[in-house]
Amino acid sequence: MTQIAGLEGKMSDHAGYASLLYTDHYQLTMAQAYLQHGLAERRVRFDAFFRRAPNYGEHQAGYAVFAGLEDLLRWMEVARLSDAQAETLLAVEAGGGRRPFDERFVEWLRSRRGWQGVRVLSVAEGRVIHAEAPFVSVEGPLASVQLLETALLNHLNYATLVATKAARLRRIAGGATVLEFGMRRAQGRAAEAGTRAALIGGVDASSNVSTSLALGVAPRGTHAHSFVQAFIASGASEAEAFEAFARSYPDDCVLLLDTVDTLGSGLPNAIATFERLRKRGHEPLGVRLDSGDLAHLAVLVAKELDAAGFPDARITLSNQLDELTIWQVRQQVEEEAREQGQDPQRVLDRLAYGVGTRLITSHGAPSLDGVFKLVAVEDGEGWAPSVKRSDTPEKATIPGAKSLYRVYDARGMATADLVTVHDERPDPSAEMTLHHPRDARRRRLPAHEVSEVEPLLEVVWQDGAATAPSPDLSELRRRRERDEERLDVGVRRLRNPHRYHVSLSAGLWRLKREALGDPAPGPA
Amino acid sequence: MTQIAGLEGKMSDHAGYASLLYTDHYQLTMAQAYLQHGLAERRVRFDAFFRRAPNYGEHQAGYAVFAGLEDLLRWMEVARLSDAQAETLLAVEAGGGRRPFDERFVEWLRSRRGWQGVRVLSVAEGRVIHAEAPFVSVEGPLASVQLLETALLNHLNYATLVATKAARLRRIAGGATVLEFGMRRAQGRAAEAGTRAALIGGVDASSNVSTSLALGVAPRGTHAHSFVQAFIASGASEAEAFEAFARSYPDDCVLLLDTVDTLGSGLPNAIATFERLRKRGHEPLGVRLDSGDLAHLAVLVAKELDAAGFPDARITLSNQLDELTIWQVRQQVEEEAREQGQDPQRVLDRLAYGVGTRLITSHGAPSLDGVFKLVAVEDGEGWAPSVKRSDTPEKATIPGAKSLYRVYDARGMATADLVTVHDERPDPSAEMTLHHPRDARRRRLPAHEVSEVEPLLEVVWQDGAATAPSPDLSELRRRRERDEERLDVGVRRLRNPHRYHVSLSAGLWRLKREALGDPAPGPA
Repeated sequence: MTQIAGLEGKMSDHAGYASLLYTDHYQLTMAQAYLQHGLAERRVRFDAFFRRAPNYGEHQAGYAVFAGLEDLLRWMEVARLSDAQAETLLAVEAGGGRRPFDERFVEWLRSRRGWQGVRVLSVAEGRVIHAEAPFVSVEGPLASVQLLETALLNHLNYATLVATKAARLRRIAGGATVLEFGMRRAQGRAAEAGTRAALIGGVDASSNVSTSLALGVAPRGTHAHSFVQAFIASGASEAEAFEAFARSYPDDCVLLLDTVDTLGSGLPNAIATFERLRKRGHEPLGVRLDSGDLAHLAVLVAKELDAAGFPDARITLSNQLDELTIWQVRQQVEEEAREQGQDPQRVLDRLAYGVGTRLITSHGAPSLDGVFKLVAVEDGEGWAPSVKRSDTPEKATIPGAKSLYRVYDARGMATADLVTVHDERPDPSAEMTLHHPRDARRRRLPAHEVSEVEPLLEVVWQDGAATAPSPDLSELRRRRERDEERLDVGVRRLRNPHRYHVSLSAGLWRLKREALGDPAPGPA
Repeated sequence: MTQIAGLEGKMSDHAGYASLLYTDHYQLTMAQAYLQHGLAERRVRFDAFFRRAPNYGEHQAGYAVFAGLEDLLRWMEVARLSDAQAETLLAVEAGGGRRPFDERFVEWLRSRRGWQGVRVLSVAEGRVIHAEAPFVSVEGPLASVQLLETALLNHLNYATLVATKAARLRRIAGGATVLEFGMRRAQGRAAEAGTRAALIGGVDASSNVSTSLALGVAPRGTHAHSFVQAFIASGASEAEAFEAFARSYPDDCVLLLDTVDTLGSGLPNAIATFERLRKRGHEPLGVRLDSGDLAHLAVLVAKELDAAGFPDARITLSNQLDELTIWQVRQQVEEEAREQGQDPQRVLDRLAYGVGTRLITSHGAPSLDGVFKLVAVEDGEGWAPSVKRSDTPEKATIPGAKSLYRVYDARGMATADLVTVHDERPDPSAEMTLHHPRDARRRRLPAHEVSEVEPLLEVVWQDGAATAPSPDLSELRRRRERDEERLDVGVRRLRNPHRYHVSLSAGLWRLKREALGDPAPGPA
C-alpha cells in the first residue's frame, strides 16, 4: 500500500462521489495517454451489454429489468473535478516517484464537466432487456467516453440486478404484497440504489425510510422482537407490548408473533389486542411471522384469525425469503390449508412477503456481468467497426455502431430483439431474417408474422444535459409490467426459462463477419 | 406502492444519507411508541454479533475481520433531521389516511443529533472477530439505541464481509500483490465502503480512485482492451498502442496482452516495447493477462520475458479470480513451471492478482448475518437480562450485558474469545472455565496455560462524539496482521477451518441458564 504524502490514511474530502474521480484508475491513465497521443477527441461508440441474464444456480432469469439510468444521469450532471481533487490528483506518485498525471490532463478533466460532445442512447429505464443486446450505447470523444465507463457500469449493473430479482419476487408472489426489508444487510450505501431498483422491479414498498421518502413513496414496516422484549424486560408482558403498539398505531397495527411462542402466546395475545382495537373502532392490519415453519404456521394462524372473526387480517412472512422459498411456501400452504379444511386461495390471498437479504444482495447471483466495450471509431467515412478478440471466446464483442429493435409477432408478443447496424431501419412490411449472434443459424419472419418493430434506443443525454426530466417511479413500474405482459410465459418462468432470441440483422451479421474475418456461413 | 402527496415519485432531497431517516421504518415506529408509552429513556444494552463466519459453499471463513466502524462513527456524527426531512416525515400517510408520526416525535428525533446518552463499546476496527461474540455493544436510552440499529448493521455487515474476503485473498496470494478492481461490479456506492474494507483486509491497492484518494492511498491500474482497440481502429497497431502507453508512463508500464492474441501478438509486441523503453533508461513494470488459461499462459509468458532479459517484469492476472481460483492458479503454475524447466517459486513471486467482482460482492457469501439484539434493560438494580426465544432455535440470543476477552495460551496464540457478564474481570492467575455457548460442554484452562487475557471492547462513542480521532488505515492493517499471526493455522485455513472457541464464562453461563429457565447441565 503506497501512502500519498500529506494524505496519511484518514478519510477526507479529497475526493468523493460527485466527482470525475469516482472511477477506476486506468480510465484516467488511458484518457491522459489519448490526450498525449492525439486520440482524445476521436469520436467513438461504446456499447453496454451483459452476456447472460442472472443465473442463481437452481433457478435462472430469462430476462432482466433495466434500472439505474436515472442515478447515472444525475451523477453525470454533478460529476466534476474540484480544486482540492485536482491538487490531490497532481500529488499522486507512481513508479520511480514520478507523478503520472500532468497539469494539461487535469485541465482537460476540469473541462469534462457536463460531458460536452457525449451522446448517450439508452433503452428506457424500467423496460425488459436481454443478454447480448446493447441496452446503452454511448457516442463521443474517445477519452470522455472511456472516462464514463466505470460510473456507467457501477450505476447500471447493480440496479438492474436488483430490479430483475424484484420482478421475479413480484411474479411468484402473485397478487400478494411484497415488501423490501434489506437495508441492514445491504452493501452500505447500496441500500439507496437497491431500494429504488426493488421498487422499479415491483415490490410494493420498502422499509428504507430515506430512500422511500426521497422517491415520494410511503415506507412500510411492523415492529421488531426487541419491542416485545423491551416491555417484558421492563416488567410488562407481550400482551401489554401489543396493546401499546395498537394504541400508537390503531390503523397500522401489525403484530410480530414469535418473540415468546408463536401459537402459545403471540397469536392469542394478538387476537385479544385486535378485539380491543375493534371495540375502539379500528380494524387490525394483521400479524407477522419471522421464524419457524412459515407455511405451516401461516395456515394455523389463518384458521385461528378466521375463528376469532378477523378473516381480513393479513399474515406477513419474513426470514430469508426469496423466489424459491416463496414458491415453496405457497405450495405448502395449498396442501396444508386443504388438510385443515381451509380454502387455500383465501390463505394465499392474505399473505404478504417481507424480503430482505436475498433481494438486496441478489442471492445466488450477486453481480451482473454488464460490460462496456468499444465497438466503433469514426474514420471520416462513418463508423469503422472495432474488433476485440479474446482468448476466452465468449468474451468477444459484436463490432460496429448499432441500433436495437424489438420485434412483436402476430399475437403482439415480443418474439426477438433485433440488433442492427446503427442506420438500418427494419422494414416490417418485408420478410425479416434474424441471425443468431454467434453461429450460422438464422430464422425468417414473414411480414404477416410481424405486428410491430419498436425502436428501443433513445437519446437520454446530449449537449451537456439529460434530454428529459426525471421519470416517475410509477411510470417505470408500468413499463416493466407492459413489457412482461408481452413476454411468452416460457421466458418468464423462474427455472430454466426459454431463451429469448436476440438476433442480428442481415446487415450487422455481414458487418460482423467482415470485421472478424470469419468464413462465410454454410447453408442454414 | 403508496405515493406521498406532493412528493410524486421523483428523486429529491427530502431525505438522504446524512439523516436519521437513513433507517428502517419500524425503528421510527417503535421509537415513537416507546416515547408514547414512557419507555423511550429506559437504559438498555444491545449487542451486535454474527451467527456464523461467511460460508462460501466450497470454502468457509474461520474468522472475520472487523471493518466499517469508522464509517459508522462518521455517520453518527452527521446524522440529523433537517427541516425538510421533518416536514416530509410529518406528511407520510398510513392506514386510514392517518399520519403515523406526530410533532412530539419529530421534536424528539431532532434532539437525537449527537446521540446524547448513547455509549458504544466496540472491538477495535481491523481486528479479527468471531461468530457469536458481541463485537459491538451499545448502551443508552431504549428509543435511541433502537434507532441506531439499521445504520449500525448497514455500515458494519458489508464492510466486515469484504475485509474478511480480502484477508483470505491476502493469505492465499502469499507475498504477491493483490489489487482490488471491483468498482464496476460493486453495488453502486458500496464501492466506497468496499474498497476501504478491502484495504483493511489486506489488498495492496485499489483501482477505485476517489476512495483511494480519500484514504490517502495511491490507486493502481493498467490499461483496458479498449486502449489497444482504439489505436487499431484508428489505423495504428497493437505495437503502436503499447509504444504510446510506454511513452506516457515510462515508469508504470504494464501492458495488457490479450486484446489480439496473447502469445502471437501481445507478448512479442510488449517485449519489443520494453526493449525500447529500457534503451530510454526505464524498466517496465510488467504485463497483464485477462483471459484464457491464466496459469498456463503465465508460465509461458514468464519464460519468454526471462529469455528476452526481463526477469523482473511482473505478470498481473485478472478475470473472475477469488481465493480458490488463485489457489488453483498457484498449484498449476508450480506444475507447469517444472515441466517448462523453470523455477516455480520464481514464477509465483512475479505474479500479481487483480480481483474484481468476487471480492467486492463477497462471492459465495454475499451477506454477513450480523444482527443487533436487545440483551439487557436497566431496572434500578443493574442490568436485567432480556430474553428472546425463537421458533428457530439458532436465532435465540445470549441474554445479559456482557464483556468480551481474548484468551491467549502459553504459546501466545489466541485460544478462545471469552464472553463474560459485563462487570466480570477474568483472573489469569486462576483456573478458568470456558463454557460452550449452547450446550453443557466446558473446558478448563489451568493458569499456567494462559499467557494473557485481553479485554476487546473499548468505548468508541460517548458524550455525543467519537472518543478517538480516525485511525490510520495502516494501523488497521497492522491490527489484522497481528491478530492473524496469533491464530492457529487450522483456524486460518481456507476450507473447513477449525472452529475457534467462543465461550461463556461461568458467570454468564449461570446468568443465561437462569434467564432462559434452562435445566441445570448434567455432569460434563
